[in-house]
Amino acid sequence: MAGNSFGTIFKLTTFGESHGTAIGGIIDGCPAGLPLDMKAVEREMQRRKPGQSTLVTQRKEEDKINFLSGIFEGKTTGAPIGFTIDNTDHKSKDYSHIKDVYRPSHADFTYESKYGIRDYRGGGRSSARETACRVVAGAIAKQLMAGVKINAFVSSVGEIFVDKPYQSLDFSRIESNPVRCPHPETAQRMEDFIRQVRKEGDTVGGTITCVLQNVPPGLGEPVFDKLHAHLAKAMLSINAVKGFEYGSGFCGARMKGSAHNDPFNPDGSTQSNMSGGIQGGISNGMDIYFRVAFKPVATLMRDQETVNRAGEKVVVKGKGRHDPCVVPRAVPIVEAMAALVLADFWLLNKTVKQKP
Amino acid sequence: MAGNSFGTIFKLTTFGESHGTAIGGIIDGCPAGLPLDMKAVEREMQRRKPGQSTLVTQRKEEDKINFLSGIFEGKTTGAPIGFTIDNTDHKSKDYSHIKDVYRPSHADFTYESKYGIRDYRGGGRSSARETACRVVAGAIAKQLMAGVKINAFVSSVGEIFVDKPYQSLDFSRIESNPVRCPHPETAQRMEDFIRQVRKEGDTVGGTITCVLQNVPPGLGEPVFDKLHAHLAKAMLSINAVKGFEYGSGFCGARMKGSAHNDPFNPDGSTQSNMSGGIQGGISNGMDIYFRVAFKPVATLMRDQETVNRAGEKVVVKGKGRHDPCVVPRAVPIVEAMAALVLADFWLLNKTVKQKP
Amino acid sequence: MAGNSFGTIFKLTTFGESHGTAIGGIIDGCPAGLPLDMKAVEREMQRRKPGQSTLVTQRKEEDKINFLSGIFEGKTTGAPIGFTIDNTDHKSKDYSHIKDVYRPSHADFTYESKYGIRDYRGGGRSSARETACRVVAGAIAKQLMAGVKINAFVSSVGEIFVDKPYQSLDFSRIESNPVRCPHPETAQRMEDFIRQVRKEGDTVGGTITCVLQNVPPGLGEPVFDKLHAHLAKAMLSINAVKGFEYGSGFCGARMKGSAHNDPFNPDGSTQSNMSGGIQGGISNGMDIYFRVAFKPVATLMRDQETVNRAGEKVVVKGKGRHDPCVVPRAVPIVEAMAALVLADFWLLNKTVKQKP
Amino acid sequence: MAGNSFGTIFKLTTFGESHGTAIGGIIDGCPAGLPLDMKAVEREMQRRKPGQSTLVTQRKEEDKINFLSGIFEGKTTGAPIGFTIDNTDHKSKDYSHIKDVYRPSHADFTYESKYGIRDYRGGGRSSARETACRVVAGAIAKQLMAGVKINAFVSSVGEIFVDKPYQSLDFSRIESNPVRCPHPETAQRMEDFIRQVRKEGDTVGGTITCVLQNVPPGLGEPVFDKLHAHLAKAMLSINAVKGFEYGSGFCGARMKGSAHNDPFNPDGSTQSNMSGGIQGGISNGMDIYFRVAFKPVATLMRDQETVNRAGEKVVVKGKGRHDPCVVPRAVPIVEAMAALVLADFWLLNKTVKQKP
Repeated sequence: MAGNSFGTIFKLTTFGESHGTAIGGIIDGCPAGLPLDMKAVEREMQRRKPGQSTLVTQRKEEDKINFLSGIFEGKTTGAPIGFTIDNTDHKSKDYSHIKDVYRPSHADFTYESKYGIRDYRGGGRSSARETACRVVAGAIAKQLMAGVKINAFVSSVGEIFVDKPYQSLDFSRIESNPVRCPHPETAQRMEDFIRQVRKEGDTVGGTITCVLQNVPPGLGEPVFDKLHAHLAKAMLSINAVKGFEYGSGFCGARMKGSAHNDPFNPDGSTQSNMSGGIQGGISNGMDIYFRVAFKPVATLMRDQETVNRAGEKVVVKGKGRHDPCVVPRAVPIVEAMAALVLADFWLLNKTVKQKP
Repeated sequence: MAGNSFGTIFKLTTFGESHGTAIGGIIDGCPAGLPLDMKAVEREMQRRKPGQSTLVTQRKEEDKINFLSGIFEGKTTGAPIGFTIDNTDHKSKDYSHIKDVYRPSHADFTYESKYGIRDYRGGGRSSARETACRVVAGAIAKQLMAGVKINAFVSSVGEIFVDKPYQSLDFSRIESNPVRCPHPETAQRMEDFIRQVRKEGDTVGGTITCVLQNVPPGLGEPVFDKLHAHLAKAMLSINAVKGFEYGSGFCGARMKGSAHNDPFNPDGSTQSNMSGGIQGGISNGMDIYFRVAFKPVATLMRDQETVNRAGEKVVVKGKGRHDPCVVPRAVPIVEAMAALVLADFWLLNKTVKQKP
Repeated sequence: MAGNSFGTIFKLTTFGESHGTAIGGIIDGCPAGLPLDMKAVEREMQRRKPGQSTLVTQRKEEDKINFLSGIFEGKTTGAPIGFTIDNTDHKSKDYSHIKDVYRPSHADFTYESKYGIRDYRGGGRSSARETACRVVAGAIAKQLMAGVKINAFVSSVGEIFVDKPYQSLDFSRIESNPVRCPHPETAQRMEDFIRQVRKEGDTVGGTITCVLQNVPPGLGEPVFDKLHAHLAKAMLSINAVKGFEYGSGFCGARMKGSAHNDPFNPDGSTQSNMSGGIQGGISNGMDIYFRVAFKPVATLMRDQETVNRAGEKVVVKGKGRHDPCVVPRAVPIVEAMAALVLADFWLLNKTVKQKP
Repeated sequence: MAGNSFGTIFKLTTFGESHGTAIGGIIDGCPAGLPLDMKAVEREMQRRKPGQSTLVTQRKEEDKINFLSGIFEGKTTGAPIGFTIDNTDHKSKDYSHIKDVYRPSHADFTYESKYGIRDYRGGGRSSARETACRVVAGAIAKQLMAGVKINAFVSSVGEIFVDKPYQSLDFSRIESNPVRCPHPETAQRMEDFIRQVRKEGDTVGGTITCVLQNVPPGLGEPVFDKLHAHLAKAMLSINAVKGFEYGSGFCGARMKGSAHNDPFNPDGSTQSNMSGGIQGGISNGMDIYFRVAFKPVATLMRDQETVNRAGEKVVVKGKGRHDPCVVPRAVPIVEAMAALVLADFWLLNKTVKQKP
């Protein structure tokens, strides 16, 4: 309700500011008896971590997860899984210069409007630091659904696009470069561009494409809780996201029905997949794919004019350690949120049919 | 949970298939003491109604709302508002030909996969008929928020786009043409195009732009319940929607931060509005605007090859009364869903500050 | 949230005032493919109906249920089940005499305090009329759980108690008398007493005992959503209920642990059942039994002094058609609420174990 | 959903087993700008703590709360308040003897039935250790509602009852004795009795009465979310609770309406208060009072025969450090849960009236 929970049956609730002692969360509703591959969880955390390449912020967050409950002898017990992640690198003093300042396109002004009080240390709760907790829960959600494959990758940075359909890409190459783009030549161009943008003290946006494979038919609920509606909410809840489209997306809005309809094969699969694996809000067994737009990061390494709480003009200095482009690190976050959505509908779907 | 409720405090739950006796809903959590302008509610229903112009389906639905509770002497009482709308034109026999058939890009196959049983009469629960209930609730939600203005309009049909910023459009012209596009010349081109598409027995997609004005700062919740995340979910829950973007949207993903950031004015307003009126998931008092992509309607007035439950090839005939382009009639639905999202956050926001 | 929904997966939302056009509800989350025995639903409605014997109010409510959706060819489809029940006997004029009056121990004063407005016709939303919708949903919930037996009966009226353990009673006799007490001699004494109370223009309270049999082990959730906690909430949500105890109940609070503990048999059943079939909030497969206390109905057939909105002393006349004792008619309501609780946990329990 | 969250707007989610590293929780929806009296929070924790007198378990839990987020410069920020409490005294080895054993009237058997796996160390999630988190949240909830007074006390132990109405008791004496009974002579008798029971290696039940004063009229929601229904659920969710009654309670079920009705005074207060401060589920401004029954603790300091997982007869030894009577330590837990219920309705009530 107050914005810090996600999901209904498989449910994540998180807490923590970028510069408090720790962040953390509680995963409730994870089925009992699931053997947890902790290495896999850590691997996802490493993918999100700052400082993993020179393309991203050099801030150091060790991101060691302390699991506090709900796991016994390597398996989930059905009890809530509580965890914390210490904020080892929270140099609060770094942020005193923005105490009364409203940074452009940050949440300083809106948090203060809403709450009448603001934890000004590095964005507080609005910092993308909180997404670490999403990755923890997402990594567990992934393990719940045997066979389901979730692959996200960077499909554009600025004006540089991967101009091939995802079917022609080799997902095993996603992690082969720091941009997380499975098309090596494009990845190189993106990398070069991001470096140049960083030199300019600027930032740049991009898009991430995500493909969900082997999702069984029947996930998603009609009317208000359509599968794609929850995927959209999940993605738009990630910091800096401005748009979501699935299947034919915005292109579909330009098409005619005769070209857009997906003809059925005798086995219920479809010949084309404009529908993006979802019809009437419910998965049909085909690939689910969607694209997520990220704006350029608002924190620049340049001075910007802005105002403070008193309405006075001030300059916000460009300093600190920030990402020139957020999409490479957002890839595991997109995957995590997709996993959380699927896991919730996966469990809910066990309740919809009366067995004789 | 099972997909038929929307909202938390201001909450709509709906029921009804396209070809049952009636559809209806319950609005729970509407504050007491709100004088209801019933004419305004009916006006919204007229905008959604089939048969209102030759551009849209000639199906007749009288769409008279029977309010059954929660209103006393013209005001809301705080009790749940129950309502039904009879299905006066539900010719079930029209649909016997599709009983065992999976229509391309409809929900026939997925509903049957999910539930093991299907009400095949006209799409049953997956029909857009259910959106009538959303319009009822949305019309009441609008009245809750004095001052807030909600205007949606058709911004593209197929390849025909309104190529002007919304600020230069006169919203009072939206209802002046059957397409609901406030730019008369573009509206005419859209109209001509839709007529041509209909003649071809085909359908076409389009986009709707929606602008929310005078929304007070502070609406929306951090992290998982960002205002735009809920708008996205709301829009993607409407039949045929494939994409959502707000503020700079997918274009923002091509931009640099130095161009994208919105500089503050001393009063807290911003000089540009790439943020789309929302920062950190919370409204900032500027216009909120977003764009919604609709695919072309899947029901064609032509024969289509498909398969039936037995996996046999069959032809689904193009007959019945359907919209060649759904966006003109979807305009009030987009507005209704936006109103529901705002009303819920509007009420929730009364609880976030401790007053001394 | 605003009080008109019950349950999470199997969820009932209701609307309607005692003197509006109709009451009704929406059952969401009922599994698809359940063949509905509509006669059984009607039978439950008959048990709740006023006017069924001279012991209860002679008000006439036909209580015909109009099912509007979610059922197709005699089975549930997974879509929400909407229904209405007309208020055929709502003589609004009967209630003009209480328009500005706060009836003692009714909800007139509190509704007006809360909402600033009140539908004064017969208690409006606070009338027990709304329980008819609970019975509809409960009757469907019962059919969901093959094998589970739910039997409630009147265990006391005023000072007259059934002083035998439920195990020695023949539940098939519950419906054999208008009091719904399976012990014929006690039933006769209760009946005589209620008639005498009615003659005095007075009312009297009582208790209902409810026994749930063949409930599988594992229903209920730990910590905040214990099975008995939800049964308590369900029962206390019924009009006029003042108390709930399960298993050893208030007597258990007088006992020592050595006498109270239930020794296990080798098969996991227990030799005694002080636990009332629930341990740690989760059913253990033994009988679940609980007792519910109902206060005497507040509407008397005598004049009572009270005050009106202006704080003036007024007399509220004893007229209309009311129950001298509510417990006989409350029996099916207690069963319905128990069924709703069980059905919700029944479905949720399908999600708690990871199968290999 | 999975049982570890409580509340809707003011919402507590908890995690933690008795013998894991730590327990903890997240309080979401606490309004921003609330100055927190941390001493008051600690005081509540001290009241719940084991080892505080020779009457209760000598287990040592330091129960230091680590607040990790949501508080800045002594005030709440509107962000979720995350906290942990280390399990400093968790001697896991103490529990190896019960690994495969189903202790009588514990949750061993039901957890294993439900989840197919069990953390056998000291009851795991079913241990009353988790109530420490409730006390933290309740202590904050109390501070939210200026003026509201919440006082619970032990009203019976075994057959020893405080036989005076609460109005004649001096609540300032509750903490003056280890039993937490405000009637000194009765307290002394209770204390003697508990000591004797402990010597016998036995345990004994009791009741707690709780009085909520200065609650404004209007809290609680009609129909399913009546204020007393949520109080009942809250209380029954506490370990060992078997019953709940408010106002006249089970006694009210013996009474006639003419004696039970509460006559109004001109100012809207009532002359008697059988209603227990709640009418139609909504507070009326009078004292709210209720009584909670606790069974005797199931862990005895004697040997008990029982069975193990294999269905073999085994003896569970009476050892460890346990409470002979739980009610003295449960007093702050009852208060905490009452505070959580009130705080949630307190906030929700800000949304129910449309202001002109």
